Amino acid sequence: MPRFELNILGCGSATTSLQHLPSCQVLNVRDNLFMIDCGEGAQLEVRRMKLKFSRLNHIFISHLHGDHCFGLPGLLSTLALVGKTGSVTVHIFQDGADQFKHLLDYFCREMPYELRFHVIEPRKAVIYEDDAITVTTIPLRHRIPAVGFLFAEKPKMRHIIPEAVQRHEVPRHFMNSLRQGRDYVTPSGVVIPNGELTLPAEPAMSYAYCSDTMLSKRVINAVKGVDWLYHEATYGDECAVQAHKRYHSTAREAAMVAREAGVKKLIIGHFSNRYVDNSVLLQQAQEVFPNTILAREGLVLDLNK
Amino acid sequence: MPRFELNILGCGSATTSLQHLPSCQVLNVRDNLFMIDCGEGAQLEVRRMKLKFSRLNHIFISHLHGDHCFGLPGLLSTLALVGKTGSVTVHIFQDGADQFKHLLDYFCREMPYELRFHVIEPRKAVIYEDDAITVTTIPLRHRIPAVGFLFAEKPKMRHIIPEAVQRHEVPRHFMNSLRQGRDYVTPSGVVIPNGELTLPAEPAMSYAYCSDTMLSKRVINAVKGVDWLYHEATYGDECAVQAHKRYHSTAREAAMVAREAGVKKLIIGHFSNRYVDNSVLLQQAQEVFPNTILAREGLVLDLNK
Repeated sequence: MPRFELNILGCGSATTSLQHLPSCQVLNVRDNLFMIDCGEGAQLEVRRMKLKFSRLNHIFISHLHGDHCFGLPGLLSTLALVGKTGSVTVHIFQDGADQFKHLLDYFCREMPYELRFHVIEPRKAVIYEDDAITVTTIPLRHRIPAVGFLFAEKPKMRHIIPEAVQRHEVPRHFMNSLRQGRDYVTPSGVVIPNGELTLPAEPAMSYAYCSDTMLSKRVINAVKGVDWLYHEATYGDECAVQAHKRYHSTAREAAMVAREAGVKKLIIGHFSNRYVDNSVLLQQAQEVFPNTILAREGLVLDLNK
Repeated sequence: MPRFELNILGCGSATTSLQHLPSCQVLNVRDNLFMIDCGEGAQLEVRRMKLKFSRLNHIFISHLHGDHCFGLPGLLSTLALVGKTGSVTVHIFQDGADQFKHLLDYFCREMPYELRFHVIEPRKAVIYEDDAITVTTIPLRHRIPAVGFLFAEKPKMRHIIPEAVQRHEVPRHFMNSLRQGRDYVTPSGVVIPNGELTLPAEPAMSYAYCSDTMLSKRVINAVKGVDWLYHEATYGDECAVQAHKRYHSTAREAAMVAREAGVKKLIIGHFSNRYVDNSVLLQQAQEVFPNTILAREGLVLDLNK
């Protein structure tokens, strides 16, 4: 199965603690690494989780609070020091592009790779696309402009049945069409249905990252039916008022989003440092949406499962 | 004995590794904390070493390479989040003040404390002074302008001998003069030598931080006779050429500085990530200057000893 794997590098909130690191994830799509947020210390966690700098070409920054982007200067400098080639694109709001470009221009004068800033906006848009996936922004509801990211695999190719293909003498040049689902018409005009020549493709999976945001209809609509949802759950029930005041969510609200949107699995994170043990948040979320798990640093999730 | 204690938070060099963190130290002078350099992740190490944010009011940045200052945005933001009051002064070159002021102005709009940037220059000067210490810059020899910092305790007060003071009927208002070493003259004109009324003060200690620099006469002269010297020792003998090319030192050269300057004790650090075990560096340094120790993260040194 083509790799679609989530690495959690940090799932704490703004005030640092020794329990968690600030926000950072790496989504591995067929060995291409996509970083989502880049809190301070992200580069060390990349090393700790044995992720390859050489495979990291895109970084998506959800919003311009320090706990989501203060790891950028260090990471981008280290990529230069380790001799990365090719390009790295940071997808970020205009102000962030300005700030970090200014800093990097000063601190990293000789770059062996091309550093690009792709300016994104706080509205829904496809901001990245390749053969395997599309990345779409999800407008969030936070104190400052913020977006989530929906990583959606494109439909995968069907699998050819070698014996059937041989038996019907399908020519080589038609194989890609077969994988895409087309029927085969023999030279004598007989239609061989695709289903006799191929086996179904694996389902195209999807992953949505939503942090930081308060409970929002907009978010629910945007993540309808995704396979995996990461949603912030900064607080527990007892801090619901504080959560709303600060445009954050409780664990229960994260679970409500998951339930309303009909997602398959929920990962909660962005935990306030007031919780030494996050199991209380897990319990509150599971009361609403049982298929919930806690994020933690070092967690690797096979999103195909 | 008044506290004069060094905390090593990071002693690695520019290319990060899992062995070491980038440069950061905290010197505790009578419970006032002075941070020296602030590599990425410094704020976490402050927490890990249980140093109090509330006691940290001065940060000294040696030079503008990322591994010596990329922890500033995160640390200064966290100081705001934890509600620090009073002021924090960052002693830094002009370009650094410009860069980080620009960034902090954007990311930390509401500061509960006053953030000051004190612009320093790459020449010898007293840049800080209080009742207990002076801090003097030490011009280093690096690829870009860089300074070390000499923390020198002021002469300490002598200790009053209560019985002697009582016997000679020394008035209360003269006690401070006594502690400073003045003789007492009685109303009838008899001189009581200070040595009969007080015991000697503890020696005033000194600590010099020199990183990053290549072997330099200037540095040797500036650290003559200090009690403790931290000197960078990025490389071992086998990389001497590389060390010089990059304006760094070998462990042996650090030891030569210590020996030539006649310091009492040497701490070596700023280790290249090529050394998984730094004992080879220690050995090379000790061949020249036996009283050498290795820096390591988490090390706390009582500099009075």
